[in-house]
Amino acid sequence: VVESNVHNGAVARGWTWDDALRGVIPPMISPLDEDGHADADAIGRVVEHILAGGCSGLFVLGGVGVGAWLSSSQRQATVRATVRAAAGRAPVLVGVMLPGTAPAREAALQAAEAGADALVVGSPYYFGVDAASQQRHVEAVLAATRLPVLLYNIPQCTHAPLVLETVEALAAEPRVLGVKDSWGDLTYFQSLLDLKRNRPSFRVLQGHEHVALASLLLGADGLIPGLANVAPRLMVDLVNAARAGDLARCNRLHRDVFELTGMYTQKLGLAGLYAACAQLGLARNIPAEPWVAVGDTHTSTIDALLRKHGLLPAVARA
Amino acid sequence: VVESNVHNGAVARGWTWDDALRGVIPPMISPLDEDGHADADAIGRVVEHILAGGCSGLFVLGGVGVGAWLSSSQRQATVRATVRAAAGRAPVLVGVMLPGTAPAREAALQAAEAGADALVVGSPYYFGVDAASQQRHVEAVLAATRLPVLLYNIPQCTHAPLVLETVEALAAEPRVLGVKDSWGDLTYFQSLLDLKRNRPSFRVLQGHEHVALASLLLGADGLIPGLANVAPRLMVDLVNAARAGDLARCNRLHRDVFELTGMYTQKLGLAGLYAACAQLGLARNIPAEPWVAVGDTHTSTIDALLRKHGLLPAVARA
Amino acid sequence: VVESNVHNGAVARGWTWDDALRGVIPPMISPLDEDGHADADAIGRVVEHILAGGCSGLFVLGGVGVGAWLSSSQRQATVRATVRAAAGRAPVLVGVMLPGTAPAREAALQAAEAGADALVVGSPYYFGVDAASQQRHVEAVLAATRLPVLLYNIPQCTHAPLVLETVEALAAEPRVLGVKDSWGDLTYFQSLLDLKRNRPSFRVLQGHEHVALASLLLGADGLIPGLANVAPRLMVDLVNAARAGDLARCNRLHRDVFELTGMYTQKLGLAGLYAACAQLGLARNIPAEPWVAVGDTHTSTIDALLRKHGLLPAVARA
Amino acid sequence: VVESNVHNGAVARGWTWDDALRGVIPPMISPLDEDGHADADAIGRVVEHILAGGCSGLFVLGGVGVGAWLSSSQRQATVRATVRAAAGRAPVLVGVMLPGTAPAREAALQAAEAGADALVVGSPYYFGVDAASQQRHVEAVLAATRLPVLLYNIPQCTHAPLVLETVEALAAEPRVLGVKDSWGDLTYFQSLLDLKRNRPSFRVLQGHEHVALASLLLGADGLIPGLANVAPRLMVDLVNAARAGDLARCNRLHRDVFELTGMYTQKLGLAGLYAACAQLGLARNIPAEPWVAVGDTHTSTIDALLRKHGLLPAVARA
Repeated sequence: VVESNVHNGAVARGWTWDDALRGVIPPMISPLDEDGHADADAIGRVVEHILAGGCSGLFVLGGVGVGAWLSSSQRQATVRATVRAAAGRAPVLVGVMLPGTAPAREAALQAAEAGADALVVGSPYYFGVDAASQQRHVEAVLAATRLPVLLYNIPQCTHAPLVLETVEALAAEPRVLGVKDSWGDLTYFQSLLDLKRNRPSFRVLQGHEHVALASLLLGADGLIPGLANVAPRLMVDLVNAARAGDLARCNRLHRDVFELTGMYTQKLGLAGLYAACAQLGLARNIPAEPWVAVGDTHTSTIDALLRKHGLLPAVARA
Repeated sequence: VVESNVHNGAVARGWTWDDALRGVIPPMISPLDEDGHADADAIGRVVEHILAGGCSGLFVLGGVGVGAWLSSSQRQATVRATVRAAAGRAPVLVGVMLPGTAPAREAALQAAEAGADALVVGSPYYFGVDAASQQRHVEAVLAATRLPVLLYNIPQCTHAPLVLETVEALAAEPRVLGVKDSWGDLTYFQSLLDLKRNRPSFRVLQGHEHVALASLLLGADGLIPGLANVAPRLMVDLVNAARAGDLARCNRLHRDVFELTGMYTQKLGLAGLYAACAQLGLARNIPAEPWVAVGDTHTSTIDALLRKHGLLPAVARA
Repeated sequence: VVESNVHNGAVARGWTWDDALRGVIPPMISPLDEDGHADADAIGRVVEHILAGGCSGLFVLGGVGVGAWLSSSQRQATVRATVRAAAGRAPVLVGVMLPGTAPAREAALQAAEAGADALVVGSPYYFGVDAASQQRHVEAVLAATRLPVLLYNIPQCTHAPLVLETVEALAAEPRVLGVKDSWGDLTYFQSLLDLKRNRPSFRVLQGHEHVALASLLLGADGLIPGLANVAPRLMVDLVNAARAGDLARCNRLHRDVFELTGMYTQKLGLAGLYAACAQLGLARNIPAEPWVAVGDTHTSTIDALLRKHGLLPAVARA
Repeated sequence: VVESNVHNGAVARGWTWDDALRGVIPPMISPLDEDGHADADAIGRVVEHILAGGCSGLFVLGGVGVGAWLSSSQRQATVRATVRAAAGRAPVLVGVMLPGTAPAREAALQAAEAGADALVVGSPYYFGVDAASQQRHVEAVLAATRLPVLLYNIPQCTHAPLVLETVEALAAEPRVLGVKDSWGDLTYFQSLLDLKRNRPSFRVLQGHEHVALASLLLGADGLIPGLANVAPRLMVDLVNAARAGDLARCNRLHRDVFELTGMYTQKLGLAGLYAACAQLGLARNIPAEPWVAVGDTHTSTIDALLRKHGLLPAVARA
């Protein structure tokens, strides 16, 4: 069992890894202000929105949090503000998805110092790597701090799937909590689930919304979906419906999920998700450079979609 | 005309951009010591080796220099040591090939402060980008300092070729010196050469050794080849032979180039090039993490290749 | 409504498209003899094996049937023997997955003449095509005969996914029965399912075993899985368990499916599936050229897998 | 030495392989009439146009000839008409680029019967193949007839580069004349050229116009460029200029080549080349289905390009 690390002397920890990794852990957006600084107030609003929706953890500087596109000081301020806002109510997982081992180690130390509860790390990228290099990379991050680690497979970004044998080898390390897979390939995901035969406590979480339902029905432990920034309750409901075996409800919720992700999986990219969060009043509409805010036409589309799914008025009034 | 920036008050600049960009500018290896620090002595030896070979510039933290895999302090120390070793004899170009705009801007400021003569920047990566995002990224780097900029196309690493229309738009900016292309695709390279019709001073340099000769014969201005760490004179000879129209000599030298690159373009990757530099006595055999030094068998192969091409004894005795 | 085509005057048709497309339709192997001729006896055994397992149709010259790798006479003989063996008990769908339109039209006429009940057609390949070319290709096949048509998406082979807008346009044609998707991408598959909103009778079938369960739970009409050559009953059981909402049973069956497909989705390729069928006594172990039969080591692995899942003794004794 | 095969008792052969494979061998378009039949008259005009331009051979049913998209009877009529038009003045090489071995063998026999002087064969496609499968495929085509064979690497279409070790193994067979490479990758091409060390008579021809000049300067034996349908003399001039070491002339001609290929390498695809041939009065503007003739705007662009390069009036008046 992974020991709980009391990250903040003053705050009693209100969560366990066991529960946290079997729920919904949104990869949080990284709100910025007009000067490009981390927006601590907005971070606070996002955290409240997410926790109010029933989510069980917070993942910063991950996919949607574009950690690889933030400066060192932006990253540091984002982690600090999130840890402060979480206030021990849920674990804060921090992505160290930088291209190579030295920058990832640097980021790991920085995250630990800022109060992270766990690190999230995947394949190195930019240059090519083999399985052994992937393993050394993760081991270097493990060795850098005493924090637990969640593996992260996202070949859409790294162009290097985590080799299954490497995941298997790393799964033997108790500080490796499990793996988040955002590839969307259920063959690969099933192979991850099969690793649980040897270590049932190894957590396997799905990060791709479109296969979220399928993954839950196949045995996924939890979800790490970008959509949970916008619709945390929907994703939590999906997990609960799947646990309850309520297939009709699962399919209705899946339809909603599929339609809502159109906001950012199609032409708009993640800038669409930032626009949606802005419309919900959570943060400014400022995606990380070099992206820019989506135009007015797209904003209307997103607005209509949020209203159709009952997401806009409720939050906007808040 | 790009103004010369006197980077170091005490040292008279012994070079012009005009000459520098029409010669050979090696993308330098980044020597490290056992503790993972930039090895200033080794950097000095590499610089002497390169300049003694007739090269016209120094490119640090580029492809072979694995800038994206170094920590901020490793990068800073590498640039400082190179600027000091160059001592105004040749320009020092510094790569800022980080995934996003904020980190690249941070690196640009750091490089300027350390005495860089120019920055080298390409497409953002990890997340997807369109042409407009690529352009904003380069413009942000241009705006960060007053240094001139060389564009860099390396889709093998970024998975996003610089869109030709973006290169064309950026070529209108006088501070954009030109472009280094390492893709190896001569169709793309020819389109870059065609940009010289509108701006003859726009420099187009080839970074892929296997098409170096072909590119020179088609009108490339110069070369930025990793192999020049090991065999600077060979690459300079190739440029001169092509300029002289001596096709027979060109083909003999091309054969040597092709054979020597086998050290690192086949199974070994860049670790092979680091091993070769170590055998030449230039630096320790320590490639950036998570890579490791190549094994003994490969070392023997590399050794034999260096001897066959007359590269080893001469330097080893020095 | 698609008219039933009485393909064979003497035989009363014992099936409807409605039932056939909501069950399991194996893409049949194409048994050959030592001289490379279609092996009619083996085809008869495969048909009996499949129908005895509860399958609702027969798909020849599709993925597993390697139609694109057979000669014109091999294809013709394979269709004839299958039609004869089916004897009106189940529809015979015939793939015309040839590279271009003229060869596909030729194959369509040949299939119609040989008694096919429907044609299966996808994207042209070898040369690049846009959406309009894909549509013209299917329309040419529709125009060639009066047979109904099932669309087929298999980008692993064609390197050109059927453009969704093209599928949508073609779905308006009553003679287009539906679509088989073997891509394995549930995002794409969900978009196919969404086409049923406008035309509920449009059938959407899953061809990739690893997402078979997930697809059924999301609303797939039926399956077209290569594994059904070996384990027809298992695939039929999976469909029934999903229809019944028996999630526990679904997961047990899915595990079996996933494990059994290891016979041919990993190193062996389709030659592994041909070996398995040979071990079941269904056909000779002769995959289409240039493939060759798998070696002894692999044969043992396959044998062990078949026995583990209770597939070998039962059939072997028959 | 490959024996000359007197393909047609009555006609004295006016060529040798030695000369033919060191010149320009256009991959001929496949002219069709309004009914989709091979247009023998047009084929005759294309042959005269090509031979008048100084080309040394004729390659039918290859890349530009879209053999994989023609029906068996279209292919047969095309070969027959070409052999008749060639009348022994130049060798007729016939592509058998069908997806699998059985169809390729069928096509090989058909081509031999129709008077082909050599067969052109590459990797199987549609299904995945390893190096051994590629080799068995070529060996099956070799065994099917007594004709010599030219290897053909075109991964843009087959999605499977010919494995270098396979090419090397096949190069030991005297009936293998050499290899046409259309990949455009000079690293791969250089490795093909290196095979000539062991067998100097092994011919290495470049099929990609954009690297034609570079390849000739590196030692290519000849060219097989689609552009030679439109501008045979230009391609022959390029070969001669490269042989003469006239670099200035080489570069002027290369510029023309690069600009003219814009007709079909950019948006239009091969339909652009068919339109150009139609404008030259060589054939009807009917590309193989499912392609359609390019629209009026593109026709004007092509027209302007042909006139700019002096190709249109001269031929149009003929």
